[in-house]
Amino acid sequence: MILNKFYLDELIKTALLEDINYCDVTTDYLIPESQQSDGNFTSKADGIVCGVEAALRVFELLDDTLKYEILKKDGDTVKKGDIILTLSGKTRALLKGERTALNLIQHMSGIATAANRYVKIVEGTKASIADTRKTLPGLRALQKYAVTTGGAKNHRFNLSDAAMLKDNHIDAAGGITKAITELRKKLGHMTKIEVETRDLDELREALDAKADIIMLDNMSPELMKQAVEITAGRAVLEASGGITDETLRAVAESGVDIISVGALTHSVKAFDISMYIK
Amino acid sequence: MILNKFYLDELIKTALLEDINYCDVTTDYLIPESQQSDGNFTSKADGIVCGVEAALRVFELLDDTLKYEILKKDGDTVKKGDIILTLSGKTRALLKGERTALNLIQHMSGIATAANRYVKIVEGTKASIADTRKTLPGLRALQKYAVTTGGAKNHRFNLSDAAMLKDNHIDAAGGITKAITELRKKLGHMTKIEVETRDLDELREALDAKADIIMLDNMSPELMKQAVEITAGRAVLEASGGITDETLRAVAESGVDIISVGALTHSVKAFDISMYIK
Amino acid sequence: MILNKFYLDELIKTALLEDINYCDVTTDYLIPESQQSDGNFTSKADGIVCGVEAALRVFELLDDTLKYEILKKDGDTVKKGDIILTLSGKTRALLKGERTALNLIQHMSGIATAANRYVKIVEGTKASIADTRKTLPGLRALQKYAVTTGGAKNHRFNLSDAAMLKDNHIDAAGGITKAITELRKKLGHMTKIEVETRDLDELREALDAKADIIMLDNMSPELMKQAVEITAGRAVLEASGGITDETLRAVAESGVDIISVGALTHSVKAFDISMYIK
Amino acid sequence: MILNKFYLDELIKTALLEDINYCDVTTDYLIPESQQSDGNFTSKADGIVCGVEAALRVFELLDDTLKYEILKKDGDTVKKGDIILTLSGKTRALLKGERTALNLIQHMSGIATAANRYVKIVEGTKASIADTRKTLPGLRALQKYAVTTGGAKNHRFNLSDAAMLKDNHIDAAGGITKAITELRKKLGHMTKIEVETRDLDELREALDAKADIIMLDNMSPELMKQAVEITAGRAVLEASGGITDETLRAVAESGVDIISVGALTHSVKAFDISMYIK
Amino acid sequence: MILNKFYLDELIKTALLEDINYCDVTTDYLIPESQQSDGNFTSKADGIVCGVEAALRVFELLDDTLKYEILKKDGDTVKKGDIILTLSGKTRALLKGERTALNLIQHMSGIATAANRYVKIVEGTKASIADTRKTLPGLRALQKYAVTTGGAKNHRFNLSDAAMLKDNHIDAAGGITKAITELRKKLGHMTKIEVETRDLDELREALDAKADIIMLDNMSPELMKQAVEITAGRAVLEASGGITDETLRAVAESGVDIISVGALTHSVKAFDISMYIK
Amino acid sequence: MILNKFYLDELIKTALLEDINYCDVTTDYLIPESQQSDGNFTSKADGIVCGVEAALRVFELLDDTLKYEILKKDGDTVKKGDIILTLSGKTRALLKGERTALNLIQHMSGIATAANRYVKIVEGTKASIADTRKTLPGLRALQKYAVTTGGAKNHRFNLSDAAMLKDNHIDAAGGITKAITELRKKLGHMTKIEVETRDLDELREALDAKADIIMLDNMSPELMKQAVEITAGRAVLEASGGITDETLRAVAESGVDIISVGALTHSVKAFDISMYIK
Repeated sequence: MILNKFYLDELIKTALLEDINYCDVTTDYLIPESQQSDGNFTSKADGIVCGVEAALRVFELLDDTLKYEILKKDGDTVKKGDIILTLSGKTRALLKGERTALNLIQHMSGIATAANRYVKIVEGTKASIADTRKTLPGLRALQKYAVTTGGAKNHRFNLSDAAMLKDNHIDAAGGITKAITELRKKLGHMTKIEVETRDLDELREALDAKADIIMLDNMSPELMKQAVEITAGRAVLEASGGITDETLRAVAESGVDIISVGALTHSVKAFDISMYIK
Repeated sequence: MILNKFYLDELIKTALLEDINYCDVTTDYLIPESQQSDGNFTSKADGIVCGVEAALRVFELLDDTLKYEILKKDGDTVKKGDIILTLSGKTRALLKGERTALNLIQHMSGIATAANRYVKIVEGTKASIADTRKTLPGLRALQKYAVTTGGAKNHRFNLSDAAMLKDNHIDAAGGITKAITELRKKLGHMTKIEVETRDLDELREALDAKADIIMLDNMSPELMKQAVEITAGRAVLEASGGITDETLRAVAESGVDIISVGALTHSVKAFDISMYIK
Repeated sequence: MILNKFYLDELIKTALLEDINYCDVTTDYLIPESQQSDGNFTSKADGIVCGVEAALRVFELLDDTLKYEILKKDGDTVKKGDIILTLSGKTRALLKGERTALNLIQHMSGIATAANRYVKIVEGTKASIADTRKTLPGLRALQKYAVTTGGAKNHRFNLSDAAMLKDNHIDAAGGITKAITELRKKLGHMTKIEVETRDLDELREALDAKADIIMLDNMSPELMKQAVEITAGRAVLEASGGITDETLRAVAESGVDIISVGALTHSVKAFDISMYIK
Repeated sequence: MILNKFYLDELIKTALLEDINYCDVTTDYLIPESQQSDGNFTSKADGIVCGVEAALRVFELLDDTLKYEILKKDGDTVKKGDIILTLSGKTRALLKGERTALNLIQHMSGIATAANRYVKIVEGTKASIADTRKTLPGLRALQKYAVTTGGAKNHRFNLSDAAMLKDNHIDAAGGITKAITELRKKLGHMTKIEVETRDLDELREALDAKADIIMLDNMSPELMKQAVEITAGRAVLEASGGITDETLRAVAESGVDIISVGALTHSVKAFDISMYIK
Repeated sequence: MILNKFYLDELIKTALLEDINYCDVTTDYLIPESQQSDGNFTSKADGIVCGVEAALRVFELLDDTLKYEILKKDGDTVKKGDIILTLSGKTRALLKGERTALNLIQHMSGIATAANRYVKIVEGTKASIADTRKTLPGLRALQKYAVTTGGAKNHRFNLSDAAMLKDNHIDAAGGITKAITELRKKLGHMTKIEVETRDLDELREALDAKADIIMLDNMSPELMKQAVEITAGRAVLEASGGITDETLRAVAESGVDIISVGALTHSVKAFDISMYIK
Repeated sequence: MILNKFYLDELIKTALLEDINYCDVTTDYLIPESQQSDGNFTSKADGIVCGVEAALRVFELLDDTLKYEILKKDGDTVKKGDIILTLSGKTRALLKGERTALNLIQHMSGIATAANRYVKIVEGTKASIADTRKTLPGLRALQKYAVTTGGAKNHRFNLSDAAMLKDNHIDAAGGITKAITELRKKLGHMTKIEVETRDLDELREALDAKADIIMLDNMSPELMKQAVEITAGRAVLEASGGITDETLRAVAESGVDIISVGALTHSVKAFDISMYIK
């Protein structure tokens, strides 16, 4: 899996400590330590599965004798009723890991499925769907990984790895041109600069100042079309703000390169997956 | 605030490290260290605000000279356009904390608003709305706090603080009665026992075995009404599973005590709040 | 083992880092890395052993080629001279883990043995022995696990999982009845309420207010007997405070349900176990 | 205070998270956030107080507006009834910190009081009382600090800061002389070497090999007296093993330099201190 | 300061725990807690100072009553004898923080001074000096900050924030063109691609494939000059490998944009600064 | 390996998280998860290798199916071209671990090689080379281990494990004699005392006060020779300060016991080692 394993392990341990705390009084007091069970994860809906190895890892950390078979891997399409993963191990581990594993795989599959839905909507245009920094505390890597699993792309990971000029930065520097010039002097050569613009004048100034990416903030599809023409390939154009399911296709057809969608990570609907233990 | 401050501080530091990483190349390279700005958090929708002190704490951790005024506190009703919090401090801190603070307050207010909506739907019945353990890794305390801010109640926090008998536990023990009996021998006197039941026979056995709480799993409102009559106050009844916005009122009117809703924490819609910095 | 393994591993690593720090200058400089030895843990007293898997885990973390045999498991009765655990592995690991493993198993067995002694004293009455929150920083889970291993029960684990009304809470709310009423409105349905009472009037008020558990604080066995009669099964009664070895049986015979003993965890006498390495 | 403040703060946060977990359901639901109270710590016994600043720090971490007065400081003699510390601050903070603060100060004062009792017993001889590595996981610094507060001394802190030759080391090296010689070649010049001896022959060999400290392991006071004569100041002599309250004075009068007592830290009796909040 | 403060605080606490461990036996046993002293940091050489606020932070964490004056700030030129920082606070804090503060400021100033020396050498050419990922474990942010303080630039921070194609990647993808094409499909729009090339053919292929940056690996200045001509501004050119003090100017004059120097962070010479306490 | 494995694992995880962050966009996007490669570490210079197991551990943590052969172990002499370690495992793991492993082994081998060079210079005299506390934050154990691998010795690890009297301590106590006397009363019997002296008068006072070690601070070799004569074996003498490659042999020939060299750890030159992956 692409997700950094040390990060994932820490996250799972945090989740298990949070969920188990001292012990599982029901399971630890009633289920014999030696008892074995089988379990499986079954999809209850249609979508893109994500987090299979993450869910599996929960049980591996609880039971190092666990056996398993992965039937659907991250990024696979699943239909309601599909078995995703089968497990065989200590009943206690299956019961204690169940909730944490489901919480992970449902959240990640929810993101991947939504991302994929947006990707499908813009299919055939040149636009890509991208995520944002509107992620949940401690879950950014997990969420951004799920976004790519669904076929969308990652915007910058954090404030270090790319520059994004907003009003406040531009005002402090005395205008777009000055801001970009000053920034280029300090920024490393591996770092791109994006500028937020609200109208075509700002767009033109950003183009002249050779911004790498220009964000078209809350513009109508019509205005975006003009922006695309003016830009003529001189910068990457990113549409952002106020885009709904209804307007998404029109935005994509305006010719922009990137459409960033905060809801991908800030308003996630869990994807329905059940775990059966017998 | 009720939320454990050590937990919150760790979570905020995790989020800020995740978001800032090395430095904010845009802000740190363009904004002078001494520059001061004012900021405010403004609601863009109607609902219940939650996470005001959490958002504020983000900036306090970044700027110990920060000044602020809290205009709406956790649990307050807000209307679109209401100013929630005003800040005055280092521009760098305002810009670097913005995303993390918004991610927190939008998520928490989203939960509180949804919780409150459910509470309103069941108003006038004896039913309370409760959350579940379907929370996101590392965010359980935050999410459960937001649930109570919206007027709903917390189910158990973790696997240590209450017992919940599912099929697997009951089968291992040889039936509901045996399971409860065996558990009572080991469980501390401060710990309640809940039993999941799928029909009225199981309900009756759980009642006879003196379960503290009985979950009516995926039952129709009609069946629940019968369950309420049979129970006659001898146990707390919790409705769970397959409850939708449409059926919620009917479920509540069946006479159950608790309706637990996983979506409160597993499928959160961010509540729209903006931060303005000038 | 019931004890949360992630918690235990962290505790052991903390202990080993504390004890070894940079390196074991004696062992690392004198014992060849390849040298193998056998070791065993032998009881030097009669009691209940606890912490066998914890002690074993110390060596597993230091030497992943370790072989072992568990001869006495947690909760077993041991006599002076009994071998509890045999080990075979790297001499360096045995020597470096010795002190940490002994510190764990001696402390845990000390608790289990004391708990068992109390349990024996009240045998034949309906009273159970319970621990308290008077535990050592970072060791609560470990200590509470040892208490159950000795046959006693756990009181609440922490301030989240059950409510306990003391003077200050009652005064702030305006009396026992008001306090319980107000609390019930906010508390989840899985959470019990205990009230501290110092005389029979308070007991009666707590009963009327339907407290789940009532603590009889520093009452004489005679007064407790009256409390039991008044209560007549309407609440769980917990005796607490000023109970000594001499008075314990009398307290138990008063008919109370629970006797909580702080000394179980705040004044632990290490149980004598030696490790032999050859 | 001498105790490393970063270590202490981490320990207190661990303890508070362990004790509070999500929130204090009793206090946070019943006590208004703005309510203020006074509190004090009062000794219920005679002894040496230790952990006053540690207890205070608990409340400072919970309430940064706290006011206090320290009436007895670490190392002071207290009598039953003496007020040690007065506090004035948020009622919630006082109630939530109470247990953690008491657990710390009772444990530390228990150690200091016991250490002081041993020091008094050997008064007038040249022997000092020292602790051992028989400490509780994560609490070594705390416990060793309390030992010095009671007037006794610290043995080595960990396996890095001094060498101690036991059977296994000596056997591996081929005898005491060879072991010391080999060790001197590798050990830094700031590190002392102690050798465990069980009879006078081993003592003589250790003396000839110029051990810095020689441990007289489980010897009778008479044998120790001979050891002292043979040694004639050429090494520091440490008595260890099987020393009881009854034999301690005799051991001290044998002329040894150091008497190390594991019970100081492995079998601590909590010192009775109460906290009153009004 | 630009350096992330949470990162810096954690690093300082790690360093102080490492250096102080239990307590400073010399300082804590001999210096009264109330004693106050003045201290200053004085440069013993000529160069660029870096780490002033980091050094200061060490003492702030040890003594919250500390007073100070910053006379030279990060990036300032210092001459031998210049006073950089004056402090006034608890003697214990000054003595306990001295080594950790010096270790930080000497290392950081060493890097800044070296970086500045390189920057001076290439002055007047279009080349910038950049660092690499050849940093020390846990110190990357600190070291990269010091590099920019000296006037040089940061290469990518980590493996997430920019792509760098080496032999192994190119071979796995089936050539430079295929590798870039495949990568562009998956990479976010904020992420640049650099390709390592060893000769002009590879350079041409990388140019045709529209690499953002092309590394000229171990080429002679003459070959680089040809590379610059061929490139004609179509990509950023980075010289790397085998560059010495002697060849640096010639490399810069070849017309490359960036010269990356591993030694800046992997072979740091501490800059001589003393702390005086009186 | 002597280095504490828990410490090493934490350090490696820190380094890998720092270097990989979310994922390795180049490797994870281009190299198939199942691809296998061979790799080796080859020395590019002559010296003493150190950190072989540390480098290996990086890859083991990334790929638990890794196979390897250690050809040169810590402390071995290597020549340019020697293969140190061969690896066979997942290509992704080899590529992602490469930089971190090299950063470790180059730093550690740099220290060991420098230490060994100093040891060679003083060969034939009675002087040992020792390190200091001038180490990098978080790396002390690693660096001190490398020092011993090169044949030099460790000075004290931290401020707890030995006492070192500087001006400020001596002044506070009222002179060398008083300081030592006061310290002996409080210090444990396993802890040595070193005194810094700047002239022969201070040396004589320190000798009379029975300091264990006396540091000759910034004295000329001639003055040191007199110090050796005056001391006549009554204390260990440590030369420190202002010692260069040119003066080192003369200092050693003065007859001092220990020469401590800060540059061993504060000014490390990375030892050139390459990793080849095919």
